[in-house]
Formats: sequence, structure tokens, C-alpha cells
Amino acid sequence: MTVNVPSRAQQIRSFLQQNHLRAWLAWRPDELLMLSGYFPAWGASLLIYFLDAEPVLFVPVLEPRDHIPSGFRVVQYPWGDLKCADPYAVLVSEVRGELVKAKAAPEQVGLIASASRSSLPINAAEQIPFPEDFASHFSDLATGVNAQTNAGFAKLYSRKTPLEIDAIRLTNRVSNIGLRAFSGNLQPGISEIEIAAAVESAICTQIGNDEIFHSRGWAMVQSGPNSAEAGQFNRSTARRLESGDLVSIELATCVNGYWSDLTRCEAVGAPKPEAAEILALAHDAQKAAVDAIAPGAVAGEIDALARNKIASRGFGDFFTHHTGHHVGFRYHDPGFMLFPGETAKLESGMVLTVEPGIYVAERRCGARIEDNVLVTESGHEVLSRISR
Amino acid sequence: MTVNVPSRAQQIRSFLQQNHLRAWLAWRPDELLMLSGYFPAWGASLLIYFLDAEPVLFVPVLEPRDHIPSGFRVVQYPWGDLKCADPYAVLVSEVRGELVKAKAAPEQVGLIASASRSSLPINAAEQIPFPEDFASHFSDLATGVNAQTNAGFAKLYSRKTPLEIDAIRLTNRVSNIGLRAFSGNLQPGISEIEIAAAVESAICTQIGNDEIFHSRGWAMVQSGPNSAEAGQFNRSTARRLESGDLVSIELATCVNGYWSDLTRCEAVGAPKPEAAEILALAHDAQKAAVDAIAPGAVAGEIDALARNKIASRGFGDFFTHHTGHHVGFRYHDPGFMLFPGETAKLESGMVLTVEPGIYVAERRCGARIEDNVLVTESGHEVLSRISR
Repeated sequence: MTVNVPSRAQQIRSFLQQNHLRAWLAWRPDELLMLSGYFPAWGASLLIYFLDAEPVLFVPVLEPRDHIPSGFRVVQYPWGDLKCADPYAVLVSEVRGELVKAKAAPEQVGLIASASRSSLPINAAEQIPFPEDFASHFSDLATGVNAQTNAGFAKLYSRKTPLEIDAIRLTNRVSNIGLRAFSGNLQPGISEIEIAAAVESAICTQIGNDEIFHSRGWAMVQSGPNSAEAGQFNRSTARRLESGDLVSIELATCVNGYWSDLTRCEAVGAPKPEAAEILALAHDAQKAAVDAIAPGAVAGEIDALARNKIASRGFGDFFTHHTGHHVGFRYHDPGFMLFPGETAKLESGMVLTVEPGIYVAERRCGARIEDNVLVTESGHEVLSRISR
Repeated sequence: MTVNVPSRAQQIRSFLQQNHLRAWLAWRPDELLMLSGYFPAWGASLLIYFLDAEPVLFVPVLEPRDHIPSGFRVVQYPWGDLKCADPYAVLVSEVRGELVKAKAAPEQVGLIASASRSSLPINAAEQIPFPEDFASHFSDLATGVNAQTNAGFAKLYSRKTPLEIDAIRLTNRVSNIGLRAFSGNLQPGISEIEIAAAVESAICTQIGNDEIFHSRGWAMVQSGPNSAEAGQFNRSTARRLESGDLVSIELATCVNGYWSDLTRCEAVGAPKPEAAEILALAHDAQKAAVDAIAPGAVAGEIDALARNKIASRGFGDFFTHHTGHHVGFRYHDPGFMLFPGETAKLESGMVLTVEPGIYVAERRCGARIEDNVLVTESGHEVLSRISR
């Protein structure tokens, strides 16, 4: 299905023009991915996106170059060079030179100062290596920042272009390979963490297929009474599955920098009636919300469709979180939520999670169903239900 | 082997007394682990550590409680509660109340403002949920912070107590289970990412053994010509191993919040002579540095032992990074490095990586050997060479 979303270049140009900016400094990995299509391995790259000139991408000397798209002038700087005491000073000086050359005055240059909640570099054991006060190095070079530019930039995350939707579709396809490993391993005696390991393994070994250079999943499996905790936290334990258990998987997947966020809940054999009721209700509530997703739909009303369905069966107090959020450039993208009272309207190109859940400690079970849904011109497409 | 390191409580008390502080607010996950032994699941917990009173641990309503050690008063706050619009305001207000009750004046209260480079929460797909400006909420409650307290606090990471050493030893034991999966899978035809998946799977499925509630590895495998890139970056690709390849694994492991950082390099079958030379030299250089580790040894001289060994065979230009760093509370702990010219001296209780490497593009191979070494009272113990 197609969406009539302006190209990424058009979206960025509109954003810059509306804010009287001539250049943008992008350095958080997810932001860099959105503006250039490049997912930086080290997370220490910086892009100058000019309104009227070729973009310049600064990468560490140590950065792998094999996935840098064409159309960018690539400049290396000595991050990782043992002989350079302060590579950031070199970077800032070179950025200054480019801005001077382009005659971009400080008030015409913007950046996001906050490093928080960006997606992770390829080595997920650490955060991005830029120092937390990195943006302060640019305080005299980029003053074109205020609450309006911050909000305008955050808005750039919400409407995905066809190319980006294809990339998110690929992530969902890989996630589904993980979810098949989940279903295929559901049997009495296997432990939650063994299932999680099988799912993550199925996901990361997709590297090399379909131009995938980075693929990582985080699987959290909760079974039996542990599934009643899945509304509070997600983790896999050594508990072994028993016949009749409900088993939930919360699965975050990042492929080439693009994310999906899915949840499935299945029974091992035949569930007890009180568990079967919860599972069926989670499916019904999720379907009610998904079915209503279309351009112009109000976020709070989508939430209400799921929430009311659950409340109508007497389980209102057991649905303890939002119904959904944006997803794609991060596990949780910025933007409005599907949440009680939210008045924002859906637009084509948005990708949202729909994930109502019911967690009943006294029944020793819980269930959540989560899909990633694209808002199309005429309705929606469930990206996470991919037939093969 | 024993180390005569003051208990964690004594170290913290000395730090507080020297800085005329009566309370410390700890909130970064690794800092919380160090001060309380608690590794927070969500990474949204806060500890008030008083000089003269029982510590208070604030945890989200959603936080699992089963690994909170005794000796702390635990207070929950409404993070994750759909009905609470601003849980951080509630937390700050409760912290204020505790500080007033304890008559701790703002200049007697300290905290680290920076959220950067803390270790990861259990769901490693996102960063800790506290907002980046979290510390600013305490700007009128905790003014006892300056460059000296920051440096003094960073110093608390360096000398590990016997209990902490045991925890890091456990992490190394789990890492070794992963490394056995690495060695056991080395055969022509298997891909780098398949080996990495097997290693990570072996590590995470240790959950449930030996009181392990959290275990995660990040394995990066580089084979043949890719091993020549292991001094620049680490990643696993779909390349399939060939007979004669050198294969490197860089392995980060976190068990219950404590970290190890190991590298192994092995050949598939018999390596070519020019690869065998590199591999043997990496082992020799590493042994030269490890053998010299003892209290009082100078960090720069340890580095020189490895570096000179490599240079003496004509490969000086191919060892492009530091020889080592502190490890344990993070994949990379704060503190001095084993680096040319570093004058800091080793003390008992320190745990350091020793990881010289040689990466020769024209020979299409590279090798690095990395162990984690405890400085004991009389010498050292290689924590990562654990006999079973």
C-alpha cells in the first residue's frame, strides 16, 4: 500500500524554512538515520544538513564505511586516534569551517541538545560515546534553537516515507522470524530464558540476508503466573513452562537502525477457562482498536475502543498502561500516544503500536497483543502480520 | 585470594566525611549497584545514602522487588502509574522530606548530575528512563557538588571489595561459558554471526543458576580479513569461516549488574605462518603486561611492557589503542587507563583489562587477547582464567 507522504528531503526543507534555518546539525543515531539513511556503527558521527547545499557527514576514523549511502560528502575526524588528545575539538572546528563557508549565521543553525533516548549504537553494551554536554560545544555556532524548533523537529519522526516504511516492514519481517521461534518452542519443560535465547538467536542470524547488516532482538518471555507481571515489567526467568500456561513475549527488534515493538501471547496446550477468557479479550480489544486506525481518527478514541472493550467485561482496572505509541526510528518514537483524552489525529505514514493488555494477579495470568500499524491513505496496514 | 580493601560502607563514609557531606543521592544504575548492591530493573530507582542514618531506596511502583537486598528502607513512588501525571515531582518531594527530616542542609548533600555512560537497565533496547535534566530537579536540595566531589566519587569505582570481586568473578565464570561456545563452534562453514548467537545464548541461559537473575552477553566475532578490523570496530557479519582463519571474539558480559570485558583470538585449524606470528605476539605482549600487575606498579609502565614487546618485532604501528582500563561496575569503569605515560599506580582491589592487539591489514588478519585482572595484595589474579 502506498502513502502520499512528502519525501524526507521535502519534510526537512519545510522544517528548516518554517524555522528560518539554513543548516541543521544531526548527531543522535536515530536522528542521523532519519536525515541521511545512515545508521552509525559507533554513534559518533555528525551530519550537517544544509538547506541549499550538499550535506556533509563527519565520521570517526574508526567508522566502517560500507553502509554510508551515496549523496553525502564524507569527512573523517580523529575519534579513536591514539595520537589525538581531543577529537571533539577537531570536529567542532571543522563544523565551524563548513558553516562559515556556507555563510550560515549562528541563528540560522539548529540542533537538538539532548542526547537522551536515542536508539543504541551497534554495540549495545554502552551508550553513544559523545559526551553528555556535546551540544554545548556548538553554543556559539548554532543558536537557532527554541521550543518551537524542538517541537518541529520531533514532529519529523511521525510521518514515515515509503522508503522508511519498507525498512520498518523489513524489521517486522525479521521480528516475525523471531516470533515463529517463540511459537515453535512453546512446550512444557522449556524455560522462559531458553525461549528468549532462541528468539534472539533467530533474529540476529538474519544478518547477511536482504542487505541486513545489523539485526538484534530483545526478547522478554513471561509464563504462567509471571505473565500477570507483564504489565509492570518484562523479563525472562528460569521458570519452566507448564501445560495450560499463558506465555507472553515482548519483543524489541532493530534491523539496520529501524525498530519494531511486538507482543504475542499464546497458551501451552489448552489454557484454563479463566486464562482463555483473558487471552480472548486481549485479542478482541486489540482488534477493536486496530480496525479503527485510519487518517483523521482521534488517538484518544482509538484508545477508548480498546479500553472500553476491556472495561465492558469488568477488567478495566487490569489494563494499566497506554494503548500505543509511535515506533520506527526508535523502540519508542517521540509523539502523541494512544491514551485517554489524547486529541491528536492520525495521519498517513504514521506507524503506531496497538497493545492493550490485561494482567490479573488473582488469576495468575496476563495477556497483551501488540502489532505495529501503518496509517495508509484509506485506512491501515498491519506491518507485523506479514504473510510469507 | 584476598584483598585488604575497606568495605563499601567504609569507603562511602570516608568519601562523605572528606567532602563534608551528610547524604548522597545515587540514581545511575551502576552507582546504585555500587552503593546498595541493588541492580535496578527499570533504572528509575534512587537511593539516599546517609552518613548517619539508614539508607532509603525509592523504587517505581512497577519495580520488581525480589532482588532488593536487606538493610534498606524501601519506598515506592508512582512511576508507571497511569493516574500520576508527574511521578518525578512526587519523588523529588519525598526526597526533600527525607532530607529535611535528617536535617541535611543542601550544601551537605551531593549527587552526580551526569546520566552518561551508566550501565544499562535490564531492557537494553533503551536508555534509563530518567529525563536527562533529572539532576536539575535537585538543584536546591543538593548543592554539595564540585569538581572535587565528582573526582572523589569516580574514585569509589576503582577498588572493589571482596563481595564485589566475587560478583565480578561470577561474571567472568559466565563469560567463560560463552567463550567455550566460541571455541566449540570454530569450524569452516559457520558464520561469524552464528557463532556470536551461540555465545550470547550460552550466556543468557545461565539465568537461574548460582542466583543469577540477569545475564546478557554482547559477542562480536570477526574472522579472516575481518579480524584485521578488530582494532577499529567490532561487529559480526555473515562471513563464513575458512580453514586457517584467525577468529576474534570481543565479549561484553553483564551478570546481575557486574561486567566483564574479554577478547579471545583462535585459529581455525592451522593458521598461515604470518597469522600465527601475529597471534603468538599478541599472547606474548599480553603475558608481559599481565605478569607485571601488582600493587604499586605504574600504569604507563604496564602499557610499555606490552607496547615494547610488539614494537620490538616491528609491529608498533599496528597496536593502535590503550592496553587496558578499569572494569566491573560497567563495561568500561571510570579511572586511569593502561596508556603511554600514565603515572597512576595500581592498588589492591582494582580490576583492569589487559588487551594489547595487533591488526595488520596487509596480512589480512589481526589478534587481541584480553583478560580481566585483579590486583591482589601480593600480585594479581586473572579473574577470566577460571578453572572448573
